[in-house]
Amino acid sequence: MNNNNFKITIDFEPISRRLFCSRDENLYQLLINSGIRVRSLCGGLGTCGKCKIMVQKGNKYLNPPTDSEKALLTQTEINESWRLACQSRIAENQIPLLETLQPLQIRIFLPQELLVEDFKILTSGLNKGVSLNPNVKKFFVEVNKPNLDNPVPDLERVLISLSSKNGIIKDTNTLLVEFEAIKKLPKILREENHRITITLYDDNKIIDFEAGNKVDRNYGIAFDIGTTTLVGYLINLNDGKVYSVASALNPQTAYGEDVITRITYVNDNEDGLLKLSSTVVDALNDIIKKTCAKAKIKPSDICEATVVGNSVMHHIFLNIDPTYIGLSPYVPAVKRGLNLNSKDINLKISRGGKVYMLPLIAGFVGADTIGVILSSEIDKESELTLAIDVGTNGEIIVGNRDVLTTASCAAGSALEGAHIKDGMRAAAGAIDAIKINPDDLTVEYTTINNKKPLGICGSGIIDAVAEMLKAKIITRSGGFNKQFIDHERIVKNDKIFEFIIVKKDETSNKRDIIISQKDVRELQMAKAAFFSGAQLILNHINQTRNTKLEIKQIFLAGAFGNYINKNNAKFIGMIPDISDEKIYQIGNAAGMGAQNCLLNINLRKKASKLLKKIDYVEIAIEKDFQIQYAEAMYFPHHNLELFPNLKEYKNIPKR
Amino acid sequence: MNNNNFKITIDFEPISRRLFCSRDENLYQLLINSGIRVRSLCGGLGTCGKCKIMVQKGNKYLNPPTDSEKALLTQTEINESWRLACQSRIAENQIPLLETLQPLQIRIFLPQELLVEDFKILTSGLNKGVSLNPNVKKFFVEVNKPNLDNPVPDLERVLISLSSKNGIIKDTNTLLVEFEAIKKLPKILREENHRITITLYDDNKIIDFEAGNKVDRNYGIAFDIGTTTLVGYLINLNDGKVYSVASALNPQTAYGEDVITRITYVNDNEDGLLKLSSTVVDALNDIIKKTCAKAKIKPSDICEATVVGNSVMHHIFLNIDPTYIGLSPYVPAVKRGLNLNSKDINLKISRGGKVYMLPLIAGFVGADTIGVILSSEIDKESELTLAIDVGTNGEIIVGNRDVLTTASCAAGSALEGAHIKDGMRAAAGAIDAIKINPDDLTVEYTTINNKKPLGICGSGIIDAVAEMLKAKIITRSGGFNKQFIDHERIVKNDKIFEFIIVKKDETSNKRDIIISQKDVRELQMAKAAFFSGAQLILNHINQTRNTKLEIKQIFLAGAFGNYINKNNAKFIGMIPDISDEKIYQIGNAAGMGAQNCLLNINLRKKASKLLKKIDYVEIAIEKDFQIQYAEAMYFPHHNLELFPNLKEYKNIPKR
Repeated sequence: MNNNNFKITIDFEPISRRLFCSRDENLYQLLINSGIRVRSLCGGLGTCGKCKIMVQKGNKYLNPPTDSEKALLTQTEINESWRLACQSRIAENQIPLLETLQPLQIRIFLPQELLVEDFKILTSGLNKGVSLNPNVKKFFVEVNKPNLDNPVPDLERVLISLSSKNGIIKDTNTLLVEFEAIKKLPKILREENHRITITLYDDNKIIDFEAGNKVDRNYGIAFDIGTTTLVGYLINLNDGKVYSVASALNPQTAYGEDVITRITYVNDNEDGLLKLSSTVVDALNDIIKKTCAKAKIKPSDICEATVVGNSVMHHIFLNIDPTYIGLSPYVPAVKRGLNLNSKDINLKISRGGKVYMLPLIAGFVGADTIGVILSSEIDKESELTLAIDVGTNGEIIVGNRDVLTTASCAAGSALEGAHIKDGMRAAAGAIDAIKINPDDLTVEYTTINNKKPLGICGSGIIDAVAEMLKAKIITRSGGFNKQFIDHERIVKNDKIFEFIIVKKDETSNKRDIIISQKDVRELQMAKAAFFSGAQLILNHINQTRNTKLEIKQIFLAGAFGNYINKNNAKFIGMIPDISDEKIYQIGNAAGMGAQNCLLNINLRKKASKLLKKIDYVEIAIEKDFQIQYAEAMYFPHHNLELFPNLKEYKNIPKR
Repeated sequence: MNNNNFKITIDFEPISRRLFCSRDENLYQLLINSGIRVRSLCGGLGTCGKCKIMVQKGNKYLNPPTDSEKALLTQTEINESWRLACQSRIAENQIPLLETLQPLQIRIFLPQELLVEDFKILTSGLNKGVSLNPNVKKFFVEVNKPNLDNPVPDLERVLISLSSKNGIIKDTNTLLVEFEAIKKLPKILREENHRITITLYDDNKIIDFEAGNKVDRNYGIAFDIGTTTLVGYLINLNDGKVYSVASALNPQTAYGEDVITRITYVNDNEDGLLKLSSTVVDALNDIIKKTCAKAKIKPSDICEATVVGNSVMHHIFLNIDPTYIGLSPYVPAVKRGLNLNSKDINLKISRGGKVYMLPLIAGFVGADTIGVILSSEIDKESELTLAIDVGTNGEIIVGNRDVLTTASCAAGSALEGAHIKDGMRAAAGAIDAIKINPDDLTVEYTTINNKKPLGICGSGIIDAVAEMLKAKIITRSGGFNKQFIDHERIVKNDKIFEFIIVKKDETSNKRDIIISQKDVRELQMAKAAFFSGAQLILNHINQTRNTKLEIKQIFLAGAFGNYINKNNAKFIGMIPDISDEKIYQIGNAAGMGAQNCLLNINLRKKASKLLKKIDYVEIAIEKDFQIQYAEAMYFPHHNLELFPNLKEYKNIPKR
């Protein structure tokens, strides 16, 4: 390696972007020069302390903290390898060592607040129209004052007013009252002349008293805790409308990219569970503040939260050890729906506030899947339907009104841009759609926010591979087609073929954006996992019920499912060969499930009933797993007869 | 006042003893010389720091803290007027001022741990034989391990084991599980190879999991929170037996003698409620430790506590503002029985432990009265029964199987030794029984623990007055009989007549122990309050029901009720003229009620039902109150016909 000309690769998370750093660049310059807009007030002078980053790997290759950093960071932050981007660079005195080393591994975490442009986080979903019957209701009552002839205690007078006010309460003696509410009652009652608002939970428990009429201040918030992204929907429980939405990256990403590395972090660090738990709770509290600010209400006006998330996110959020989800036979601590007190999990809503956790199905099929079922109502379909939710984990549901079977599949996170050479998340500058002209292999593309291209996100990767197939650049087995290897857009780098999607003069970091042979393999594994997973569930259903059902309809859920070209997803064989009008993109169905549970308590009862009906298949131990998976590695499949409508494949070589 | 010969009076609480301090004495010497044994390791040298006392009034008359005190007390303690008795004396430089001052008021609080001899706190009561049906049950189960074919989550496997183990749980889906228990489950389950103990509460909620078989570790503790004394009964919930008992003075006494002064303290001090609340919780936690040490178990083996106490003690314990109990119309915040989490009130029992608060009846008729009704079963009597519970507050019940009416009476605390010149609580050295020879007015007496006499406690005061009546030393109107005023045992002090019970050469503090004219008046007011209270309740019953019922039976509850000579109580007219065999001394019936609620959950349901049946009379606003009270001031009553069996009164002059 030539010291005067060295280039070090650095992986930036959570945008999953690999950049090349030169000797003279500090990391702030590197980011800016690559088109990644980061916050700074001082423009990189080391005085504002805004450009905080966390070095996850390879701290030793960087210069030691500068005086600026010692002044602007806490000792704890320095110990945890936080740096200021503008003060960090590859250490000169490490360079002589570099030649003898393995390829340098440096990984840097960019916190949410550093990035100027928000990630593209899917917040909307298909609302099937849920009627309003929330679990929390508020009643305004004027309470009788006590007198010597009838010196009835405060609470008992309040209950008398409540029972005369509404028809719900049959016997006030059996009505429960939260201790915290009782404690504040004497003061609240006398604050506005015995006129108070009662918050009633589940029609059987008073959880709060407020002075005066606060009936219009009845809000709920539905959370979707994804491995990578967090979304909160603030809903008015009097009219059922979403008043504001806020999202954030899951800050746990700093401690591990996927659920398995997070479980490992919990096991390797004494206070690891508490740290991961509190970091996500803090982030949700920030979302609460943001949504409330947008809707001009106070966090204390929120009486209840509902939460979906995969099993590991669910456990870590609740400070429950997720270890055994990660070990065979992969069991969670609990799967039932949970009604909790917000104060027990430090969620900063109303002091007497409640939290409903949607139930889990299994170790790797979580509450998010229940959310998808509830909001998509797959359980009411007459035709057998395949629903897939592609997040950092992949969940598959096959079902209709008679049967409901789920599984998780090890799809990896290729579809979120990870492990793809120029892959990145759906952030500004990501290529999200691609067309290849089969005649000259020129490429048309679009990017998110129309920024100069920086990398390719999931939907772009699927487009790229589908288009490369249609242009015969690759074969059905995924190899580069010998016929084209002399084309100027096909290059060889370290003995690996690459197809140039965007040439370096057009990109923001002045490097070609490519799809490599290895990238195609990553996508093959991901799509094979989904297809074989669906196939194995279908076989399982048919075997146990002795039927010959077929999938007639597809729901694509999640951010990825919403943004991809469904035709291309079918073309690469990720989903079965079903006509386009029977493939529905249903948006953030998991988050919608959490919203629906907030709006109508009957859906929680339904979730509980669903648990008994839902079957779970552990795909990896199904006997046909290896064969099914291997056959699905082909484009679209080893057995072309499974995709009769994809006529183009007649002309695409198998190898 | 002669400086060389001065004597300053100091009141010591909570033993309600007034002592006279000379110039040369420090307070440690004063206490020791008066026969009050206090703890010290160094014998008064100021090195051990054991003889801590709190100066409640008159701190300015004492010397400033010495170097010893500065070394052995914290700054907070010094600010709160804590001293070491052996370092405290009347300040020499205050003496010239004394002559111009009002009588010096110095009040010193002696904390429980300072006193070597325990107070005589009544812990036993009449047990009517309650069958065992506790609210907390423990089950040992061996839980199936999960496997890949059936990867059931931890909690759901536990519930399957539980439902196969006992017949109680019909539907494990509706069984609630405490969040804290769920959080610990994964670890507990794997600690002893999937063998765990489940703690079930109210047959519908799991509150704890423990590794291994801990079924024999199922204890409860019943608390009686008195204004002055605290008692805890540790009960094994598997066999229903009391394993140990511990008692303590209520440390709130440092902040006020009775409930009204405590309410005042709450109102006058910003953190007054929290301070009073935490001080009693700390004392109960000490009792928990003591009872557990005696029974050789751990506090975490206690799964539930039950609590009785008057309304103010109940509210302060729960950190509920008692202000409105003290203001007309005297309403508590809540009267219903409460099921609470021990952690919400910082009671240090099992982490998932529960607390049941017996219900209140009214502002001045508390859970202690419910406890008396439950344990005495007055509601099952065929004859109309009067039950009185004499503590720092007096509660009266008149009832039988048809009617149940309660009231509180402003008896003052004369019967606990307060406001009586030589009165004191039932501690070592207190005269508890007295006989006067009518021929020569010599006095026979007994003292608690056979110590040299130091003062007179409640039962001794009643005996003294009854015997003074029988010897005609006082008249039926309570005045000293002119006939005897020249007797050597009758002296005049500051124009007030006094009868010498014990001459100074026999007493521990070398001063006469006397009953003064004023003391007789105090007792008259106390006994009149009880008698007129019972009479007014009876009238209220007869008027509202148009009957002419009479009291046929008497239950005397509480420490005082247990130790007094019931014949003398009747003789002074404190209770109606009923034959001795119909007067029952039922001991600490309130505490027994708390125990019974621990033993059998049906009694809690009964308490709840009783609330609807019990009538409450506000005595002070009954129209005959003034007349009834005035007539009852006479011994035994203005109307002698009400006491036909007390033949001796024929010879006792009315005035």
